[in-house]
Amino acid sequence: MNISLSYSGDYLELLTPELENKLEAIHKGIHSKSSKGADFLGWLDWPSTLSQDFLDDIKETANRIRSNSDVLVVIGIGGSYLGSKAVIEALSTPFQQSKDIEVIFAGHLVSGEYLKQLMTYLDDKEVTINVISKSGTTSEPAIAFRFLQQYMEKRYGDQAAKRIIVTTDEEKGALRTLAVNKGYQRYVVPDSIGGRYSVLTAVGLLPIAAAGFDIDQLINGAKIAEQEFGKFDTKSNRAIQYAVIRKHLYDAGYPVEILATFDEKLKYVQEWWKQLFGESEGKEGKGIFPSSVSYSTDLHSLGQYIQDGKRMLFETFLMVEKTPVDLTVFEAENDGDELNYLSGLTLHEFNAACHEATASAHLQGGVPQVTITMDQLDEQHLGHLLYFYMIACAYSAYLFDINPFNQPGVEGYKTNMFKILNKPGY
Amino acid sequence: MNISLSYSGDYLELLTPELENKLEAIHKGIHSKSSKGADFLGWLDWPSTLSQDFLDDIKETANRIRSNSDVLVVIGIGGSYLGSKAVIEALSTPFQQSKDIEVIFAGHLVSGEYLKQLMTYLDDKEVTINVISKSGTTSEPAIAFRFLQQYMEKRYGDQAAKRIIVTTDEEKGALRTLAVNKGYQRYVVPDSIGGRYSVLTAVGLLPIAAAGFDIDQLINGAKIAEQEFGKFDTKSNRAIQYAVIRKHLYDAGYPVEILATFDEKLKYVQEWWKQLFGESEGKEGKGIFPSSVSYSTDLHSLGQYIQDGKRMLFETFLMVEKTPVDLTVFEAENDGDELNYLSGLTLHEFNAACHEATASAHLQGGVPQVTITMDQLDEQHLGHLLYFYMIACAYSAYLFDINPFNQPGVEGYKTNMFKILNKPGY
Repeated sequence: MNISLSYSGDYLELLTPELENKLEAIHKGIHSKSSKGADFLGWLDWPSTLSQDFLDDIKETANRIRSNSDVLVVIGIGGSYLGSKAVIEALSTPFQQSKDIEVIFAGHLVSGEYLKQLMTYLDDKEVTINVISKSGTTSEPAIAFRFLQQYMEKRYGDQAAKRIIVTTDEEKGALRTLAVNKGYQRYVVPDSIGGRYSVLTAVGLLPIAAAGFDIDQLINGAKIAEQEFGKFDTKSNRAIQYAVIRKHLYDAGYPVEILATFDEKLKYVQEWWKQLFGESEGKEGKGIFPSSVSYSTDLHSLGQYIQDGKRMLFETFLMVEKTPVDLTVFEAENDGDELNYLSGLTLHEFNAACHEATASAHLQGGVPQVTITMDQLDEQHLGHLLYFYMIACAYSAYLFDINPFNQPGVEGYKTNMFKILNKPGY
Repeated sequence: MNISLSYSGDYLELLTPELENKLEAIHKGIHSKSSKGADFLGWLDWPSTLSQDFLDDIKETANRIRSNSDVLVVIGIGGSYLGSKAVIEALSTPFQQSKDIEVIFAGHLVSGEYLKQLMTYLDDKEVTINVISKSGTTSEPAIAFRFLQQYMEKRYGDQAAKRIIVTTDEEKGALRTLAVNKGYQRYVVPDSIGGRYSVLTAVGLLPIAAAGFDIDQLINGAKIAEQEFGKFDTKSNRAIQYAVIRKHLYDAGYPVEILATFDEKLKYVQEWWKQLFGESEGKEGKGIFPSSVSYSTDLHSLGQYIQDGKRMLFETFLMVEKTPVDLTVFEAENDGDELNYLSGLTLHEFNAACHEATASAHLQGGVPQVTITMDQLDEQHLGHLLYFYMIACAYSAYLFDINPFNQPGVEGYKTNMFKILNKPGY
């Protein structure tokens, strides 16, 4: 298991004695849980400390859902849905028709049409709902759940309570109270783990397991990462490297990072990464703006800008080394499309060449580059990758002298909105 | 029919005599087709000059496809797919099960798994293919078509030729030659209209019509826009306004534009917009970097960065005034989720309040704002909007003294790739 990282500049040159000292202080702050916002460092040793009983319990619930439901509707927003969506999309097979179960997300958007149509779609299917909210009063998922709870009670009557599973605070909050009153099965959002770091808790694990993926392996990959990236070695620790390079590039006039992939299945890993880094770092007038592209398609879109536009971008390629399913370009009798020169090449090899070509063109165009490569796209490697990003993000935010674990700016729109809508108390 | 545009600053103050003169010169250059890159201004009077016969012919083909196919596979990349994808997604109903026909895109990505699975998915369905490429030798769609053409010939034998429709150059190119030899029906990518401006040509219209949408109304909306935005009036022409504001904000230290919507159905309108502006403007070390967010979900993700991160962003809201399908929040007996204060509010009204709240919070956080509002999401209004963006983009690029119609930077990766892959001649 490995993540390799390469950088178009000279990494070792960045390691001044002053920076080494700062990194060591950050490392100690994180691992002694004494740094800014340390109350939310629960994810740090989560993979190595959670119990097998906990995983087995989630798998048992997931199996029950899989056996009695055609659809699992997951209601959540932000960190309450992006992690599981990222893992499920990355591992799913496109155009798969005979799925055991379909996982549909709701509550991340407010749309009468979406909800109405969803309820019609559910009518001839067996349904379970997993509503995920620390408080239960975040407007968007709460609105979706009000409608879907009513729908479930109309459809299933007394049995609805057996088909609604709540993931919420252990001891307090509106959703917990409701769950206790109604007798819904409950899972816990730990106090010490914020939404965007919660993919490996019940928040992410239950939907992922219900979708049919191996959460033991996911946690196993994260556990290996916890050990690997827990070591303080500025020369070999990839998480520290990634954080140092990002901060250096920001200081050197590159405040926009583009996460580029050659696999559409990673689209929601990119979205999850955007929340993780954007929400952790974008504070106090600082931070790298996270953006993403999907190649080849975006080579024929944002590619032009990246190559020749304003020089303020750096690009991080997230590559997957091997693929289990591939096609090989065959020789055509009539070479009308002029592709016979590719005969015998697999499409994965084509993408590798395309990556090499793009990287060198963009570099020449003045775009510094990081390349992160994972061996393959499976549960274990994804668990490893997600943990890598979480710990790298912590280092990165601390290098900006920013608390990675709060999100004061999210309150702005909420407070305004409650005033506009005359919410009691505002 | 109207697009309204508002700006958080004082627009009229930006209109110096010098700028007025520059705008007039740009306007004359565009409308006399004498500006930089004017060979590619064919889209300018396209809506008013195309013939009803042309539209009727497209509709006839679309109806034939709809009557004999379950799936239309559209093979294209960049401008050859983003326009039709944008319109189809914007107009489609989520979770609709009894579609007459499904439109699936291929050729915008290179993936053995995607193609293999797609061909398996097609096996029990009737299929038509529309392959769209000016030259026929752009690698990504050409690779997809090589596989899918073979698939169609295996499945349909002699009849395959009747189920493959080609949209390509009128007179030359590999795909045209192939189409002539095989007897495929052909549509034309006009010489004077580049990919990202081609949504209203056969490139976009055939897939949109095949999906069941009203292309007469789409063109009608564009025709109204052509007339409206063709008038030189710096005070009332919204396209000129948008271009002027963008350039001003860029010069004032805001090189990143975020296009924000409150409707997931506009996601590919945002992607189309990113190609249009990014590829038109991102040249010579200049241009605004186009990025996008989807609210509410991204308020719980990039929202924190937008509110509090590095101050270099401006935000353009694309809003839809009315919605035909909605839900109203109902009173719950037990107000456990504390939402009863919203009783009687529609979800669309909730989003409007959320927009107002977000706009004022972000503005207070130092993010200048433009708001573009369209009346409703239908063919006519979309045609109007797409034309608005195209002409605004031309003004905008010319304000940067940039040719909006070439894409020299896209060649960089291609040349490198052909060398790596030993393409003859490279």
